Amino acid sequence: MRIFSTLVFPRRQQQIFNLRQFQTTTIRRNPISIAPIQIPMDAEQSLRQSLSEKSSSVEAQGNAVRALKASRAAKPEIDAAIEQLNKLKLEKSAVEKELQSIISSSGNGSLNREAFRKAVVNTLERRLFYIPSFKIYSGVAGLFDYGPPGCAIKSNVLSFWRQHFILEENMLEVDCPCVTPEVVLKASGHVDKFTDLMVKDEKTGTCYRADHLLKDYCTEKLEKDLTISAEKAAELKDVLAVMEDFSPEQLGAKIKEYGITAPDTKNPLSDPYPFNLMFQTSIGPSGLIPGYMRPETAQGIFVNFKDLYYYNGKKLPFAAAQIGQAFRNEISPRQGLLRVREFTLAEIEHFVDPENKSHPKFSDVAKLEFLMFPREEQMSGQSAKKLCLGEAVAKGTVNNETLGYFIGRVYLFLTRLGIDKERLRFRQHLANEMAHYAADCWDAEIESSYGWIECVGIADRSAYDLRAHSDKSGVPLVAEEKFAEPKEVEKLVITPVKKELGLAFKGNQKNVVESLEAMNEEEAMEMKASLESKGEVEFYVCTLNKTVSIKKNMVSISKEKKKEHQRVFTPSVIEPSFGIGRIIYCLYEHCFSTRPSKAGDEQLNLFRFPPLVAPIKCTVFPLVQNQQFEEAAKVISKELASVGISHKIDITGTSIGKRYARTDELGVPFAITVDSDTSVTIRERDSKDQVRVSLKEAASVVSSVSEGKMMWQDVWASFPHHSSAAADE
Amino acid sequence: MRIFSTLVFPRRQQQIFNLRQFQTTTIRRNPISIAPIQIPMDAEQSLRQSLSEKSSSVEAQGNAVRALKASRAAKPEIDAAIEQLNKLKLEKSAVEKELQSIISSSGNGSLNREAFRKAVVNTLERRLFYIPSFKIYSGVAGLFDYGPPGCAIKSNVLSFWRQHFILEENMLEVDCPCVTPEVVLKASGHVDKFTDLMVKDEKTGTCYRADHLLKDYCTEKLEKDLTISAEKAAELKDVLAVMEDFSPEQLGAKIKEYGITAPDTKNPLSDPYPFNLMFQTSIGPSGLIPGYMRPETAQGIFVNFKDLYYYNGKKLPFAAAQIGQAFRNEISPRQGLLRVREFTLAEIEHFVDPENKSHPKFSDVAKLEFLMFPREEQMSGQSAKKLCLGEAVAKGTVNNETLGYFIGRVYLFLTRLGIDKERLRFRQHLANEMAHYAADCWDAEIESSYGWIECVGIADRSAYDLRAHSDKSGVPLVAEEKFAEPKEVEKLVITPVKKELGLAFKGNQKNVVESLEAMNEEEAMEMKASLESKGEVEFYVCTLNKTVSIKKNMVSISKEKKKEHQRVFTPSVIEPSFGIGRIIYCLYEHCFSTRPSKAGDEQLNLFRFPPLVAPIKCTVFPLVQNQQFEEAAKVISKELASVGISHKIDITGTSIGKRYARTDELGVPFAITVDSDTSVTIRERDSKDQVRVSLKEAASVVSSVSEGKMMWQDVWASFPHHSSAAADE
Repeated sequence: MRIFSTLVFPRRQQQIFNLRQFQTTTIRRNPISIAPIQIPMDAEQSLRQSLSEKSSSVEAQGNAVRALKASRAAKPEIDAAIEQLNKLKLEKSAVEKELQSIISSSGNGSLNREAFRKAVVNTLERRLFYIPSFKIYSGVAGLFDYGPPGCAIKSNVLSFWRQHFILEENMLEVDCPCVTPEVVLKASGHVDKFTDLMVKDEKTGTCYRADHLLKDYCTEKLEKDLTISAEKAAELKDVLAVMEDFSPEQLGAKIKEYGITAPDTKNPLSDPYPFNLMFQTSIGPSGLIPGYMRPETAQGIFVNFKDLYYYNGKKLPFAAAQIGQAFRNEISPRQGLLRVREFTLAEIEHFVDPENKSHPKFSDVAKLEFLMFPREEQMSGQSAKKLCLGEAVAKGTVNNETLGYFIGRVYLFLTRLGIDKERLRFRQHLANEMAHYAADCWDAEIESSYGWIECVGIADRSAYDLRAHSDKSGVPLVAEEKFAEPKEVEKLVITPVKKELGLAFKGNQKNVVESLEAMNEEEAMEMKASLESKGEVEFYVCTLNKTVSIKKNMVSISKEKKKEHQRVFTPSVIEPSFGIGRIIYCLYEHCFSTRPSKAGDEQLNLFRFPPLVAPIKCTVFPLVQNQQFEEAAKVISKELASVGISHKIDITGTSIGKRYARTDELGVPFAITVDSDTSVTIRERDSKDQVRVSLKEAASVVSSVSEGKMMWQDVWASFPHHSSAAADE
Repeated sequence: MRIFSTLVFPRRQQQIFNLRQFQTTTIRRNPISIAPIQIPMDAEQSLRQSLSEKSSSVEAQGNAVRALKASRAAKPEIDAAIEQLNKLKLEKSAVEKELQSIISSSGNGSLNREAFRKAVVNTLERRLFYIPSFKIYSGVAGLFDYGPPGCAIKSNVLSFWRQHFILEENMLEVDCPCVTPEVVLKASGHVDKFTDLMVKDEKTGTCYRADHLLKDYCTEKLEKDLTISAEKAAELKDVLAVMEDFSPEQLGAKIKEYGITAPDTKNPLSDPYPFNLMFQTSIGPSGLIPGYMRPETAQGIFVNFKDLYYYNGKKLPFAAAQIGQAFRNEISPRQGLLRVREFTLAEIEHFVDPENKSHPKFSDVAKLEFLMFPREEQMSGQSAKKLCLGEAVAKGTVNNETLGYFIGRVYLFLTRLGIDKERLRFRQHLANEMAHYAADCWDAEIESSYGWIECVGIADRSAYDLRAHSDKSGVPLVAEEKFAEPKEVEKLVITPVKKELGLAFKGNQKNVVESLEAMNEEEAMEMKASLESKGEVEFYVCTLNKTVSIKKNMVSISKEKKKEHQRVFTPSVIEPSFGIGRIIYCLYEHCFSTRPSKAGDEQLNLFRFPPLVAPIKCTVFPLVQNQQFEEAAKVISKELASVGISHKIDITGTSIGKRYARTDELGVPFAITVDSDTSVTIRERDSKDQVRVSLKEAASVVSSVSEGKMMWQDVWASFPHHSSAAADE
């Protein structure tokens, strides 16, 4: 599924449009769904059933007791009935407790997740990894700044992306504007279909996302209301599962049925209607040229296909890539850094001959094994499992080698950044999630406190996008394959007899002619056979939405042999699309941890970022405030800067332990402490191990280990170890 | 002057606003003015004068001849008169020729410049350095894509910028959204003042920039019309010189006076009116929150000042930096890649104590010498001259060390990129170009075929921006200096006596009170003295725009001694702001050159990019199509990729000379030709020199010389030279 605006939006052909495909839009709405809570459905259901029975029994027994009392029955009889009532009450209460515990255990899970998230987010905000944008003016929902460490991480992630994809795969990078004229996004389908369903508070006009309100209602009922029947609970769960398929009318009907009102005012709500998520603007002074802030970067590549193909010497396959801002005017942004109104995308469009999707470097990734979640496992209720990529492609689980190659490269990219491979899975789209033209689609999902988050979409989108722009612009976006020698090919020739068709269909003639000409080989040969045997055939004309009767004299169908010197075709495109902000947020969560201070009286935060992404590679501390040490620190600093190693000098008089803690919280992997004028110590963040290195070597050791030319183990093995109770904490 | 939207716009205080300051806006309108044509004014003027006299003489003599003929004068007399007429005609024609040649020699200059530009731009467009955006849909004026080599250059320029400024100066980088709510840009002044003057074709509604039309009219008259008088020519030149100071009314009057009409239709034009250059949009679904696409990145830094100051341990000075897109909805973009509607800015805001603008690293740049163009040299008609930066600061030509330090760093940045230091100058703003609050301002201007282009603005903007956001948001954006021990300070205390003021000024009381309280020390002490001596004083209240009479009983003014523990102040900001796209375009022009092919039958293009910015560092050519050589090429390619050296393999069967030419045109500095399976040749682009290196060493030699760890001279000195008539061209 294309993430965000981008992926997520299926860009489907307008004329072929059914509910299944509409799902792709709706599913996109909740890519950040919390992972399904793993309570065995039967347990909860039978407890609700049992609770409801016990409640009835208690009520019935209560009535019986009252009746006995009213009829002045004998005391032993009444006492026995009361005893029975108390017993039933106890039983009911036990069932209640059990149900409560089952519901709240999942609740606790989410509470724990929320507490963890709060700890991460507090640290991130306090250390300026991010800042709510325009904070002094109370901010704007869904807009965030990257502060200094966040910005450095983003820059490192993008550099590595350029190295890992553009450079190592020889891709053609382009950089297109964000301001985009309407015609481009009309062709891509965004102007008409890039929408979310919105409801308005009928009195105040406040806007809400319709699906959010329904989801909140169902979740709250399920989690907090013990009295709902097992049937009701099942219904609500079913709504949660299928609501993404709801039409505006169905969604509106459910909202009415459940009596959902505006959360802030309890006012009634309007019917749901689609709201286009693009930021609209106007290009030039006349006000007559509508434009939008691009919802994805991909379109900029598609419209340049022809030039890029020539630039590549008219050779396929090749890939173009773009990194840039994309925009999405969310109705009511939630989920913090994951659902924002402006974000950085990195997208690849790999153009390939649809008849040959093999990849010359597939063997480089074929042996990788990681968590995959194919369609069938999802349908049969299993969970993701470790598969070997080569086997997945060989068995056809993954549609083709090129798609498989990119899945492997994405896996390597994310894990090298520091994403935990046990919390990373590749989930295949269900048939109903994909646009009809897509050949196959896998999302890299990363588990976070919000559940499994779609961070990269890897889709084989066939020829859809290039065709859409060819059609709209009239410029053929095609590739050619020259044959070594001319090939004799059999070509289907469909010749509608316009005169006869005109007599028969008058004003509709054009539609019928076009439909006849659009038949594929199989359809045409079937018609030819029918016409020959029966002289007449029923034929559905989709642009008229009716069936007409075609007679033998109205069309001639034949196969002719022709010599062809080349093949002209629209390439398929395989599109890996990366939500950089989401990847970074998940990385924060995966790298965050705490450990007790030496005194054991507090928990200290740290980010275990790999040196590759760490915002600062090294801090330089003079042990005490002293001119000699500070001079030495400056020399090291200058050397680090000259080799491009980001670092910071901390000359505050704070204890070295506190300074280490401060630097751990920023995820700085190495610290150089200047404690003499000839040698220094280098400390590694995760192990807290220290070695002693000469002043002269310090910068180059840190630089090697930061750039991955050397591992810490090698440093640990090569230099004398240093331990100092005073120095650490 | 702030470039583009950014710099250029003075963000001036709204209440103090005069024509001189307005100039800063108007000057911004034409930063891309072609360098003044260097014709001695007197020569042209006296020729026009002389031509007009000769024309009169010819006319008079013609009349005389006709009169003689009419009066049937004697033939010798008539012949003599005709001879005289012919002589005068010859003289007139000679003057005409001379004038024409003077005008068109400047014209030729611009023709040469245009031919050069055309050659550069053709190459750039053909090799996909840039692509007009959305080309298949006929494009949008002022929007361009970076194609693969352009994109690589941009990425290299930005990496070097990060290294040279952020890393080496330990700056705090931030990354804020482009979508900006109105309140922020209201505070900065952009909502009210970020405008250009526009006129409309009264019939078709087509929009034009008013100053462009007037400029075109004057230039064309001066260049093509020989009959205009010397006075008229002088007037037109004067208009060109001062039009940037024109008010909308003055500009409209001139357009009317000259009878300027719409260029496309000759229809009459509307009066000029201001058009706001920001792309407007709406944030969220309600349509009630207006927003804009930011016209500069600086505001995102200012609104975060408080957090950044804390992040920096409440220490000054510190600098924050941001790289990002900015937007400017030009009325009618011209001048290709220099005047665009979306562009990348890299901006630094260096916050400093206004009482101490020294810079600890100034000595690092003090000895630099380069072209500077101080205010006085401009006023007295001199040209830019080489100055030593240290002396310029010492003499006060440059206001302070910090400003000087950044000028020096910008010089180093640009020249290391490959900007020709002879075509780079630092031009100081004239007093009338600067906003009233600015302390000093220098533009790095680069000479191109369009003239001297403002590419970097380096301004000391004092405390203006932080104050504007403090005022609007109510959040104090200030710094503190704690005193080592409390200081006794004398503080001015102004206490208006509201009762008396109310009686005297009624509804105006508030304005008077505010004006009294806003007096600075000097004004207050002067008033105190006057009140004591005369009992009454005239006082100008600017918010009322009138003078009122203040009596002794209306205000008490005194100085009181207080102990203070700290000083709270608004920092000054020194702002170097880089137009990345402009720098890159100028770099293209400075690096472009041609040289004859070996056969001498054609001119070959090349870009002499330094390895630092070259889009691809190396091409790898197997000499002939042969599996063994191709395998070797792949091995080298893999090694290059692993050390991050961008490169390309060219396995086409084209002659090696043609392949070199192709790679020269992309500015690739090194080429490895595989002509054996043990060793290869490495060729340097500019010298065309080749050395022979073992297969194993090839990648590491190219990597060292690409990254500047080694110079080509060292390679040339260390390896056997290779010369092959067959191999090169």
